[in-house]
Amino acid sequence: MVCAVKLLTRTAEGGRAVAAAAKLCYSPSDAGSLFEGLGPEKVRSFLAHLRKAGHFSPFEHASFTFAVDGLSRVASHQLVRHRMASFSQQSQRYVPVGTPECVLPPSVSENPECRGLFEEHARRSLELYRTLVDRGIPKEDARFVLPHGWATRLVVTMNARELHHFFRLRLCRRAQWEIREVARQMLLAVREAEPELFDLAGPDCLTEGACREPSSCGRPYATMEELLAR
Amino acid sequence: MVCAVKLLTRTAEGGRAVAAAAKLCYSPSDAGSLFEGLGPEKVRSFLAHLRKAGHFSPFEHASFTFAVDGLSRVASHQLVRHRMASFSQQSQRYVPVGTPECVLPPSVSENPECRGLFEEHARRSLELYRTLVDRGIPKEDARFVLPHGWATRLVVTMNARELHHFFRLRLCRRAQWEIREVARQMLLAVREAEPELFDLAGPDCLTEGACREPSSCGRPYATMEELLAR
Amino acid sequence: MVCAVKLLTRTAEGGRAVAAAAKLCYSPSDAGSLFEGLGPEKVRSFLAHLRKAGHFSPFEHASFTFAVDGLSRVASHQLVRHRMASFSQQSQRYVPVGTPECVLPPSVSENPECRGLFEEHARRSLELYRTLVDRGIPKEDARFVLPHGWATRLVVTMNARELHHFFRLRLCRRAQWEIREVARQMLLAVREAEPELFDLAGPDCLTEGACREPSSCGRPYATMEELLAR
Amino acid sequence: MVCAVKLLTRTAEGGRAVAAAAKLCYSPSDAGSLFEGLGPEKVRSFLAHLRKAGHFSPFEHASFTFAVDGLSRVASHQLVRHRMASFSQQSQRYVPVGTPECVLPPSVSENPECRGLFEEHARRSLELYRTLVDRGIPKEDARFVLPHGWATRLVVTMNARELHHFFRLRLCRRAQWEIREVARQMLLAVREAEPELFDLAGPDCLTEGACREPSSCGRPYATMEELLAR
Repeated sequence: MVCAVKLLTRTAEGGRAVAAAAKLCYSPSDAGSLFEGLGPEKVRSFLAHLRKAGHFSPFEHASFTFAVDGLSRVASHQLVRHRMASFSQQSQRYVPVGTPECVLPPSVSENPECRGLFEEHARRSLELYRTLVDRGIPKEDARFVLPHGWATRLVVTMNARELHHFFRLRLCRRAQWEIREVARQMLLAVREAEPELFDLAGPDCLTEGACREPSSCGRPYATMEELLAR
Repeated sequence: MVCAVKLLTRTAEGGRAVAAAAKLCYSPSDAGSLFEGLGPEKVRSFLAHLRKAGHFSPFEHASFTFAVDGLSRVASHQLVRHRMASFSQQSQRYVPVGTPECVLPPSVSENPECRGLFEEHARRSLELYRTLVDRGIPKEDARFVLPHGWATRLVVTMNARELHHFFRLRLCRRAQWEIREVARQMLLAVREAEPELFDLAGPDCLTEGACREPSSCGRPYATMEELLAR
Repeated sequence: MVCAVKLLTRTAEGGRAVAAAAKLCYSPSDAGSLFEGLGPEKVRSFLAHLRKAGHFSPFEHASFTFAVDGLSRVASHQLVRHRMASFSQQSQRYVPVGTPECVLPPSVSENPECRGLFEEHARRSLELYRTLVDRGIPKEDARFVLPHGWATRLVVTMNARELHHFFRLRLCRRAQWEIREVARQMLLAVREAEPELFDLAGPDCLTEGACREPSSCGRPYATMEELLAR
Repeated sequence: MVCAVKLLTRTAEGGRAVAAAAKLCYSPSDAGSLFEGLGPEKVRSFLAHLRKAGHFSPFEHASFTFAVDGLSRVASHQLVRHRMASFSQQSQRYVPVGTPECVLPPSVSENPECRGLFEEHARRSLELYRTLVDRGIPKEDARFVLPHGWATRLVVTMNARELHHFFRLRLCRRAQWEIREVARQMLLAVREAEPELFDLAGPDCLTEGACREPSSCGRPYATMEELLAR
């Protein structure tokens, strides 16, 4: 299985709200009038200007809520480290485990022998989980035997400023492959919904033209298309 | 002048997103299906249940963006202390000051002598500001002579969890009158937009039936109507 | 194995700093003079007053840094959800796994048959991890087969306000047993270091005299001693 | 008057705690042993390495608490916008205003005519404040006539990561002069206390060798000495 991201909802006219908020800082008008007066083309050019200047503070006014399914607890543990975000996660204390749903890393999937061992292990882990529950062990303790790769579900909300930060870190080629895949799907979804807020996003190699990591991968992204291809 | 609050935008179907996120924690389904399956009545009853249980964490998924105009810098200084929120504020470094816009406290307004002194002082402060700017003092330094009551404008975004916290603190009778008025207008606006997220909100006297402040005012609110009346 | 908490370091004279900061709000003096003028007895009584009034904001000025060892990734996943805190965690991407270190839940430990199955599973999981690494699978992917109970290490920093919040939630009898044990050891450590900041802490049943949970356990804590006993 | 910063207290051995936390991420040892094993020279070189790599996350484990006196409410309003920080501020609702304490901007101070007008205005504002209080206006409303430049006092706590961010923004030549002066005094104080955590800090022109602001001042800082000179 592979994770799947769906944009559940978002701030209506988020890009326009961001542009109005940014304009307010330098204008004698009120924000309501600024918001009314902004057409799509002005929003687009003004947001591009803010992004180039690195002024991401007003991007906080636009917020996006995603359903993330089929993410391993390896990746969800990383994901919830982002503090400027909101998470609701399926509970392993309360929700009984059903079919063997373990995220299969590509490196394992491509190696038939390893894949066999991995899948057999996932099945046995689930069997043991069930045996323990049958023997009276609480679900919250039986889950200790489930593999790290076991899949979870979350609802995640981030604003556009945190999303830019998230894409910068997590779309780097050196990020873990699974959180990169979540980030890629999230970026695809928000670009479809509010293209002008995310016309350019990703690691420094793409957005700044240079990597600042001391142990760089040496393979900079040249275009958004390259970044967004699976 | 008196402050004016306008709801600029918000998370579309925020209440439904909150309910779906909360349901996810205890359900084997995915969040997308839960979101689709929730009708208005189910959303309403489920949100009431969450609020009663004090489980406000999923309320973070619904976000609201306000234009606040005519707020004194006394009150804006308090407002921006709320850290789980986003602010864009009109800059006094860049925006030149125009007409004498000073927030008049009701206690001053009701006293003709004091009101006269107050308004005369506001006029003179603006005159001195202009004199200083004419003498070459930068706007960012000339503003040091403007009174604390000088009006400012902000765009403010808070999620529904932080809003409940904000209403709890700032609608208390002991809160400063001006930030109470902002909170009152914000609560009116979000109740119109998403009534089920804010069916009950405010200080502990109203929502919990008891005040925990050591120096309580002794005048508990009995109903939302009483709280929301000016 | 069972988790072990050690207080690594903390704000020097944190209680005195909290008391001075709180006094500043209501005093014409400067904070340096207030800090100098506060003897241990005044600090103690003033902090007790703040706690009773629920004024925890100045408690943020005192910060505590812990080493936490032997925590399962089940519990560390919950721990890092506390956003007003700082975490550094041993990386499973970079640190190779050594001996089978899996946290054994008491419910499993007390059942010889289950314990045998559990420990055998932990051994086999480690064997498979090693086999995968030998076959060329990257460590970051091989770890997908390790059980959720696998032990991790963290450095955790929280301020005294967040600690009070943490103890309130995580020392509740309904919290997961492992995070309760971490919280218990953390509270023991900070009470030894700064008793006046934590003279009373824990769930509402103990600190407020009443539980607000809709599905309460019905067994309130009566004393700090009872709360702190293993 | 001019603002004065004093370091009240801090995390004991904060630099060593940061180094131990960072080492933990890549080491099989426990944090207690790593902390014990780190001598001053190892701490110094390891922290320099982290800073160069831009890995500031472990810097959160070291926290610093300052007394800030004589800051205008113009500058305190900016200061409290930093959300990863803790503030306790002298209350104008409760503390009566005494002598005319208004921060005098250098641009005004250097112009005798303007200075005279400014100081006369500060005196008259205080007189009016007292008249209003005598007429029965509450202190919290009378303060609306005090100038923006009126001085306040705060206790401020920031961790070393946020301090680096604060110095990056607020020591820029384009930052407001007063918050620059606070930042300069804060940096002097933390460099004396924990030099290895702050061997290099400040705006990008100094730490990265290049400014990213679209409207750059064109006068990069070359050395820490230049940055720290008044």
